[in-house]
Order: sequence, then structure tokens, then C-alpha cells
Amino acid sequence: MGLIVQKFGGSSVADADKIRRVAGIITKTYDAGNDVIVVVSAQGDTTDDLIDKAHEISKNPSRREMDMLLTTGEQISCSLLAMAIQEMGYPAISLTAWQYGLTSDSNYSNARIKSINDERLSKELDSHKIIICAGFQGINKYDDITTLGRGGSDTTAVAIAAALKADLCQIYTDVDGVYTADPRKVKNAKKLEEITYDEMLELATLGAQVLCNRSVELAKKYGVKLEVCSSYEQKPGTKVKEEVKTLEKMLITGVAKDNDISRISVLGLKDVPGEAFKLFTLLGQNKVNVDIILQSIGRDGTKDISFTVSKAQMRNTVDLLREKYPENKVIHEENITKVSIVGAGMQSNAGVAAKLFEALYNVGVNIQMISTSEIKISVLIDSKDEAAAVESIHDAFLA
Amino acid sequence: MGLIVQKFGGSSVADADKIRRVAGIITKTYDAGNDVIVVVSAQGDTTDDLIDKAHEISKNPSRREMDMLLTTGEQISCSLLAMAIQEMGYPAISLTAWQYGLTSDSNYSNARIKSINDERLSKELDSHKIIICAGFQGINKYDDITTLGRGGSDTTAVAIAAALKADLCQIYTDVDGVYTADPRKVKNAKKLEEITYDEMLELATLGAQVLCNRSVELAKKYGVKLEVCSSYEQKPGTKVKEEVKTLEKMLITGVAKDNDISRISVLGLKDVPGEAFKLFTLLGQNKVNVDIILQSIGRDGTKDISFTVSKAQMRNTVDLLREKYPENKVIHEENITKVSIVGAGMQSNAGVAAKLFEALYNVGVNIQMISTSEIKISVLIDSKDEAAAVESIHDAFLA
Repeated sequence: MGLIVQKFGGSSVADADKIRRVAGIITKTYDAGNDVIVVVSAQGDTTDDLIDKAHEISKNPSRREMDMLLTTGEQISCSLLAMAIQEMGYPAISLTAWQYGLTSDSNYSNARIKSINDERLSKELDSHKIIICAGFQGINKYDDITTLGRGGSDTTAVAIAAALKADLCQIYTDVDGVYTADPRKVKNAKKLEEITYDEMLELATLGAQVLCNRSVELAKKYGVKLEVCSSYEQKPGTKVKEEVKTLEKMLITGVAKDNDISRISVLGLKDVPGEAFKLFTLLGQNKVNVDIILQSIGRDGTKDISFTVSKAQMRNTVDLLREKYPENKVIHEENITKVSIVGAGMQSNAGVAAKLFEALYNVGVNIQMISTSEIKISVLIDSKDEAAAVESIHDAFLA
Repeated sequence: MGLIVQKFGGSSVADADKIRRVAGIITKTYDAGNDVIVVVSAQGDTTDDLIDKAHEISKNPSRREMDMLLTTGEQISCSLLAMAIQEMGYPAISLTAWQYGLTSDSNYSNARIKSINDERLSKELDSHKIIICAGFQGINKYDDITTLGRGGSDTTAVAIAAALKADLCQIYTDVDGVYTADPRKVKNAKKLEEITYDEMLELATLGAQVLCNRSVELAKKYGVKLEVCSSYEQKPGTKVKEEVKTLEKMLITGVAKDNDISRISVLGLKDVPGEAFKLFTLLGQNKVNVDIILQSIGRDGTKDISFTVSKAQMRNTVDLLREKYPENKVIHEENITKVSIVGAGMQSNAGVAAKLFEALYNVGVNIQMISTSEIKISVLIDSKDEAAAVESIHDAFLA
């Protein structure tokens, strides 16, 4: 009994039958005596269809007008879901961002939430309505419509849960929780009952597509209890919270991989101070997001710097560097995968890295680059070795 | 040079090419030195598609949620049109009803406009933007979204023109103006240069689909100059205004027909005072809109009352009357058409009715009912005679 925020993604509301199924989950929660606020994404392919419409008109439409266009997708799905709940005999009301008072900055297409005015939401809860909020959207100080970028509806749900001090924020997805590895690829993958915010953050950053990391960051900041559950099976999912209590603390929580990565190397840089500073300042000014960085040890007065960027940024980055470093060789490689292990437990356990490298050695996988943080270790390997590497690592730590 | 409001219907913005054509009309008006506010309907079949989506969920969805759903259609078309104008290098901005400040009452699906707060519109005009407004929508005092009913975008355009004291409100349609009869059906039909609000009102009421009469009423009330023009041909349309000056005042302005009509008769009512009062009070309480009424002369202590209603209301009305008048015979007829002539000139000319009846007699058409007002005469005839009747009347008065 309390206030529960439930978020449903686009595939969960893709057609009338799926909308009815979701309405069933919501009304069951309401029947159990809870107040319920729902956040919903646009149906299935709606957003892509709208983007296509815009691109028929303009190759590069203004982001303000794109946000005006795209937010109709969530307005459609939230009104349909409210109708489905009403059809079952329950009181429901759909609200858009300007109605439920979510204000953001003016960074169209990727806006950050500034505040939620809970007046309308509280009023509708007081009259015992199930509230269906259009996710992914906000309004800025000019009263213009913004969108919150990738995973925006997750962020909407967590922000509403934080503003109204909800007891739980449930994120419904295609999977029934967070696994120790991708269950479609690794046969021994296990579902986690609980995971910490930090572990979830690392997993999200490292390519596990379950939750967008902005929403996890926000949940951690405001102490919002999250649960990842399945829209298709009614059973407990994975809880995401500050501290996890388990009898046997696992060394690591999961194995993740990320294919959307490419490696760029600038060869033969002068081995003098300031070269790395100059290079990464240039990349920063050009809004290139760099992940793993490796600098070779200087030899013969020169050194090489390698780093990884997303595949989408590779071409532009290589062009930029070839223009700015005409005397150096700039090479790139796309057939690489980043495999990572994550776990709060590794902070207090030596030998985790050694065990990881052993697992890779056992299946003959060569490591190209290594990167570590307090609760994760990532290695860069050839994409062809990806499946074998993940399976071997998973079984070494988690089976 | 002034402020021009331009309204484009759904078929005018049905696809990317048509949107570009409309953008061409708008920017040409802007290039001539005018401020331009555009009101746009939903693209082509969008509204019908959204209604279908709702009906997959609920046979009788709440009107509040339907309005939430349907208004996305205009939000889509206004953002796409703004993109098309920007693509041509002009400044444009799209606005929804809550942004341009159109408030209405809370009669969802058929709301009446209460006011327009011109603050945002004036601000965008001051910065020389072409403003694209989503038509057909408003917000009520609860900050909920409403729709303005059939022809709502015309009404939006006239209301904005009135609020901002625009110099002209142009309604762009499939036809290039108002004709003396339907030009697809009557070969001698002529385009009118000018027509009065009252004549236009009668024509709109009588089935000429060019303008919805709420928008004409509003234009008359606030003295907004209207022009009906074609989205496809750039030439002067028909001006609608208070007084029309023509050298030879035409006796009538046009011939219109309306098929969406059915006749209901209650036979054998007592020929005592109060029977008609009771009957039409009952119909009014049940929200039945009655058009032409005919009461027979009493005979043998009984009388018959006949009246017309829209085809959509016929079934329910007949059921209602059979329940409430179990002792009377209630009959109905659907194969009827109302043909009307309209013209301010007939006020001061005797013999108009006689000429009308002669034109019908000449082609052997029987008149079932007659109704007159100051500037129109309507007759009810069998639907099979419709084409011959309209042509004969048109040629008698207008050829």
C-alpha cells in the first residue's frame, strides 16, 4: 500500500491487445490498494514513423520542431491507455508534460529535467484516479515542448517518483529483470534479485540495455527504489537500490558487452608533455565522447595514443584528426567489442583482474586494451571472440 | 501589407509535396510584406486513423481522452509545416492551443471558444516569425485539452483573426471560391466574387461544405473579412463580408442541397393546443436537432406533425417517439433531399418563391415540404429528383 510509479516502454503498448495487457497490470496494482502513476512511451514504431515524416520535409529539421512532432507519440499512447483502463471500469486520466508540470532546460531533443510541479498530480491522486503520463517530454521556460533524449521515459518515471516520494518505481520491459549476462547469449545467466545503483549504472553504461543510466543516476540521487519487471510475466523482477544485502556477497554482479565501439589511434606523436592534453581538448571541443584511452610508452622520441569512440562518431573523428594531424598516421578499427565485469564486491577482493584475464586466456582471446574503475574492469577484444569471451568470463565468476 | 490569417484544411497538407505547396503560398504572402499566422488541420486521414485506434480499445471512449488523442493530428501537421517553411529559409514556429492561448469551455469534442490570450502570438509576430497554429483545439479551465467540433479549424482561424484584428482571414480549400451551385454538378455554376455573411451562413447551413457556419457567425460578429481561396490555384477567391456592392444585385446568390436529412412524421396526434409544444420539448431534452417542421391542418380531431433531422439522429428519434407515443403511428423517410436558394436580394423581391416552384414544376419535381426565412427558401424533394431540381433552379435564377 503506497504510491507506485510504473513505466511501460513502446513495445509494451504497441497495439490494442498489448495496451489491454498493460491496463491489467496497472489495475491489479490499483486494486491492491496502491496509488498508481503510469509513465508510457510512444507505441512501437510511432517515433520512427514521425522521424520519417520529418525527413521527407527536411534533411535537418529544427530540433524545436522535431520535439513538437515527436511528443505526439506519447500523447497518443497515454490517451489510448487511459481509455483502456476506463473501459475496465476504473477512473483514469492521461496528462502531457505541461499538464503534469515537468519543466526542463531548453536543450531540445536531449533536455534535462529541472523540476516537477506536483500540484496537478497530487490533485488527481486525491480523487483516486490512475494517472497516465506521457513520458519522454517536458516544457521549457518559453512554454515550448522539449524531449528528454534516449531512455527519456525511464527518466520521466524516476523524476515523478522522486518528486512525489513514491514507494517504488517499476520499469516494465521485455525482460523480467537484470541478469548476470545477456540470457539470450549466455546459457548460465542468472537473474539478480537485487543490484546496487552503482552496479546498475556501470552495467547500463557498458551496454546492458535494460535501463538508461540517466534514470539510474537520478534514482540514486533521490533514493528512488527501482524494480525492473517484465510486461509479460507477473513475477518479481530485479530491485535496484542503495545497498544490497545478500548472504553470500557475489564478487561480481554481471558481465556486459558493448559493440557500439570503435578504436582510433594516432601514431608517432612527439613524446613531450602536453600532446595528450592537446588531442583530447580538440576532441572535446568537437563534442567527441571518448571512452577507453591508452597511451603507449614513448620510444625513439614518439608515442601513440589510442582511444575508443562510438561507431557513429568514428568517421568524423578520423576526418578531424587527419586534418589536424597531417604528419601523423591515424588508423581505426571497428571490429572490436568491449567486455566488462561489474560488481561492488571487487573493491575488497584482490585477484579479480587476474581471474578475468585467465578466463580469456582459457579460450584463447587476445586483450587489446584494458580499463578499470572501482567496481568494473573492461577489456577490448576482437568482435569475433565476443561470445566465447562472455561465456567463459560468466562461468568463471557467476556459474 | 498587414496581418493575414491563413487556414489550410487536411487535404491541403496530406503529404510532404502538398505541405511544400502550402509553404509556398505562405512564404509568398510573407514576402509581400505581411505578418502571417497560419492555422492548419490534421493531415488527410490522420483523424480517422486515430478514431480507429480508439475504437479498437473502447466502443465509447471518454470524450476527454478522445480530445487528448485527436489533437495530436494537428500538432503533427503544424510542426511539419513549420519545418517546410524553415527549409525554405524563412523563420517559422509551430504552436499548440495551450501555447497560443486559446481557451474554451469544457464541452469535450464540441467545445466553444472563450478567449484568446494574444501574448505569445504578438511576441512571435514582433520577432517576424511565421506562426503555424494547430487548429481545432483549445484548453479549458482545468488545463485539459478540448476540440472544437466539426469545422473547428475554420473557427480557430476566424477567432485568431478577430483577437489580433487581422486585416484578412483566408480559408484555403479544394475549391477556388463560393459558387452559385456545386460546380461539379451544375455546369452553369458561377464563382461569386463576394457574398454577405448572412448569405454564406445560409449556404453553409444548407449543405454547401465550403465553410462551417460557426466560423462565419464568428466572422460576422467580429467583422472579420473572410476569403475562400484554392490551395491549388493562385487567384482571387470569394470574399465574405458585411455588405456586398455589385452593379447588378443578384436576386439569389446560390443553390445548395443537403442529403444528410431524413423526415419523421407522428400521425394522428390530438388536435388540441400544446401537442407540438410537448413533442418538441421531448426532442429538445433528448438533444435531437430538428430542422424543417410541418404541421398538418387538423381534421377529424387529429393532426400530423412532420419534421426533419440528420440521418445520424433518425433511428434514435424514431425509437424515442415510438416509446413515448405508443398510440400514434411514427413513420420515417430517408430518400429525401433539401434544396435551398439563398440571397439577400429576395428580401425585397416578390415572386421568388413562385419562380422556384415553377422551376421545379418544369422538370416534374414534387415538393414535399417548404420552409422559408428572410434570405432563403428550402424545399424537400425526393432524392432521385435532386440533380434535375438543382440544375433547373440554378438556370432559372443564375444562368
